[in-house]
Amino acid sequence: MSDISPLAPKSGFPKLPVIDGVRFAAVEAGVKYTGRLDVMLAEIAEGSAIAGTFTRSKTRAAPVLWCQENLAMGAQAGGSAILVNSGNANAFTGNNGHDSVETIANATAETLGINPRNVFLASTGVIGEPLPSKKITDVMGQLRDGLDAANAEDAARAIMTTDTYTKGAKASVELDNVTVQIAGFAKGSGMIAPDMATMLVFVFTDAKISQSVLQEIVSGATVTTFNSITVDSDTSTSDSLVVAATGKIAMDEITSVSDPRVAAFADALRGVMLELAHLVVRDGEGATKFIEITVNGAESDAAAKTVGLSIANSPLVKTAFAGEDPNWGRIVMAIGKAGEAADRDKLAISFGDILVAEKGWVSPDYREDDGAEYMKGQDLNVTVDLGVGSGSATVWTCDLTHQYITINADYRS
Amino acid sequence: MSDISPLAPKSGFPKLPVIDGVRFAAVEAGVKYTGRLDVMLAEIAEGSAIAGTFTRSKTRAAPVLWCQENLAMGAQAGGSAILVNSGNANAFTGNNGHDSVETIANATAETLGINPRNVFLASTGVIGEPLPSKKITDVMGQLRDGLDAANAEDAARAIMTTDTYTKGAKASVELDNVTVQIAGFAKGSGMIAPDMATMLVFVFTDAKISQSVLQEIVSGATVTTFNSITVDSDTSTSDSLVVAATGKIAMDEITSVSDPRVAAFADALRGVMLELAHLVVRDGEGATKFIEITVNGAESDAAAKTVGLSIANSPLVKTAFAGEDPNWGRIVMAIGKAGEAADRDKLAISFGDILVAEKGWVSPDYREDDGAEYMKGQDLNVTVDLGVGSGSATVWTCDLTHQYITINADYRS
Repeated sequence: MSDISPLAPKSGFPKLPVIDGVRFAAVEAGVKYTGRLDVMLAEIAEGSAIAGTFTRSKTRAAPVLWCQENLAMGAQAGGSAILVNSGNANAFTGNNGHDSVETIANATAETLGINPRNVFLASTGVIGEPLPSKKITDVMGQLRDGLDAANAEDAARAIMTTDTYTKGAKASVELDNVTVQIAGFAKGSGMIAPDMATMLVFVFTDAKISQSVLQEIVSGATVTTFNSITVDSDTSTSDSLVVAATGKIAMDEITSVSDPRVAAFADALRGVMLELAHLVVRDGEGATKFIEITVNGAESDAAAKTVGLSIANSPLVKTAFAGEDPNWGRIVMAIGKAGEAADRDKLAISFGDILVAEKGWVSPDYREDDGAEYMKGQDLNVTVDLGVGSGSATVWTCDLTHQYITINADYRS
Repeated sequence: MSDISPLAPKSGFPKLPVIDGVRFAAVEAGVKYTGRLDVMLAEIAEGSAIAGTFTRSKTRAAPVLWCQENLAMGAQAGGSAILVNSGNANAFTGNNGHDSVETIANATAETLGINPRNVFLASTGVIGEPLPSKKITDVMGQLRDGLDAANAEDAARAIMTTDTYTKGAKASVELDNVTVQIAGFAKGSGMIAPDMATMLVFVFTDAKISQSVLQEIVSGATVTTFNSITVDSDTSTSDSLVVAATGKIAMDEITSVSDPRVAAFADALRGVMLELAHLVVRDGEGATKFIEITVNGAESDAAAKTVGLSIANSPLVKTAFAGEDPNWGRIVMAIGKAGEAADRDKLAISFGDILVAEKGWVSPDYREDDGAEYMKGQDLNVTVDLGVGSGSATVWTCDLTHQYITINADYRS
């Protein structure tokens, strides 16, 4: 195990609220790792609404395809479940991949007395190796017996691969005198040496909300949270976000996006998602800097995001941050290569509050020493103004260090 | 200076043929470096056709904009010239950038008795610092006095930044009993510590060919040569390719792309461009492996190239090569994230002649030891079949090593 990331929150895993209607269990199944939790089960009460967003990879893993089918088919009668293993991604495993998905979904469904199509699956770990599904079906009884509403942290631990810390976030929000709880956890951006990072996120709330409204809120919030982070520009075959709303709190169901309570609920849910997204970046392989990049003055919000991700994914920008080098020339380069409209002669760049460049050239007041001093910080902000419109976006990333190379190149599979 | 790249050709700089109508000079102007050649001049005879392709960056440097204007305006009467400095990119330098371009073009034109709009300029080096144009105009007489048809290697040396070796290539081609010579040189993919890589390429031929046909051939050949290589996915503000055809050889001018001689000439020119492109990759920062990636079975050639570049730019793929790890799972990931159509269940991947994966899973005959042995080589081939069409493309890249991080993160500007 690696040392804990220097960017990990000092406060550790938060005390998550119990979400009425959800129970968790985690066990050691020995899928690949031994002596650690590697399978987690979340049992979700009947009547819950479940929404999800998934990787857009064209080589999606079998469990991702299964979950997407489930959502497309709509909820079946009865309760639901989420079952996740670490150690094996069940990706690029041909027909065997689909077979093990069915085997595990059926076993979970039988154990909990629910429909297999209400079982959401995720796997993270090595790719191209058949998932030993029997190791998972063998622990079904143990998982069922361990179900407990207070077990979220164990569940968060079971889905880790080379994550260096467990990642949780929570929020509560008042909706017409009712206090709704939201709790979630995630894994991500650690690598299965030497395989693939995957981001898995599970969020639970006791809010009463229809599936279609929940899906719309989740899809919208994904754009500005999980789809606005990058560690190394590589997209997993298995990224999955599942959000379950149990409706166990006494409130009138939200059934329309025009319901006046939607804004507050969506804000709170997005807040939890954003916090989890940041925790993933803070555990990026080899990360020593957490970097927020805001792009203003773009032709559109989408254009601003494209430029932001071009900066965030540039190896030259990321290595400059690693070297604490206020190398704004590399930011100019990354803006230019993004292909979106920018007015070279109006372009402005700031590091934190320090105006570095304006009107297409270095600012007359900028002193290199100020930039260098700023770069020594751990949490850094870059703001860019493209000077052509009113579109804006914020993305988050980490630096690119020797440790990234060590993690990803110095091992052999 | 870094050690010479382990991928550098053992034969050194080739003996380039003299191109009738072109003379070169190189001097020490002290633009930024001292004690080395840093400005080069190529004088090109009246009647030459000049074509070019340039970076598509939205933050193109002043000299790039100048060259593109020149080409758009069409050739002016009289001879032409190319003047290049290293040490300063004259990029993101506001109005000052344009002013120094004009100053240098005018001085060059006056020295050679030509029109300033026939002077092509390129600059490579630090960004955002005003180009000290006087240091360049001061050496004009010295450059003129040093002009010599045999000086190409000095010229190739003067444009280097942190390139570890000079890069040249040549070809000759028979066109209806006339032997046409082609000679070119390039710099690229070394970094100005800690600034930006730039690729500059200059190619000369004595062929007699109209500007429009030359431009069409050059633009076409760029797609499968310089625009099919990547070191780290970052695009310079200054990438420039200029090709000059002096027409000094006795032949009927090629004035139409349907001229039967075009195919042979274009093949030879593309060969020189491809060799120079490979030399740039072989000098990629920290490179220890030269990697050719061929994608077949795509919906279109463009889709194949997108997938190829997705593989070539993936940090996880590149670090796997650095670690000599036959990690085909990362190639599956990079195919998936490219967003182009792929049939997961028909996907095939080979390392050299070794079939690694087929029909969406690891090949039954594949042995990990064979893959690991193959990865120990210096020049590696990856072939992917997407299984959906007949589009294909080949791209070239290098691995991502600790040395890349050292070059780009361990210095401070």
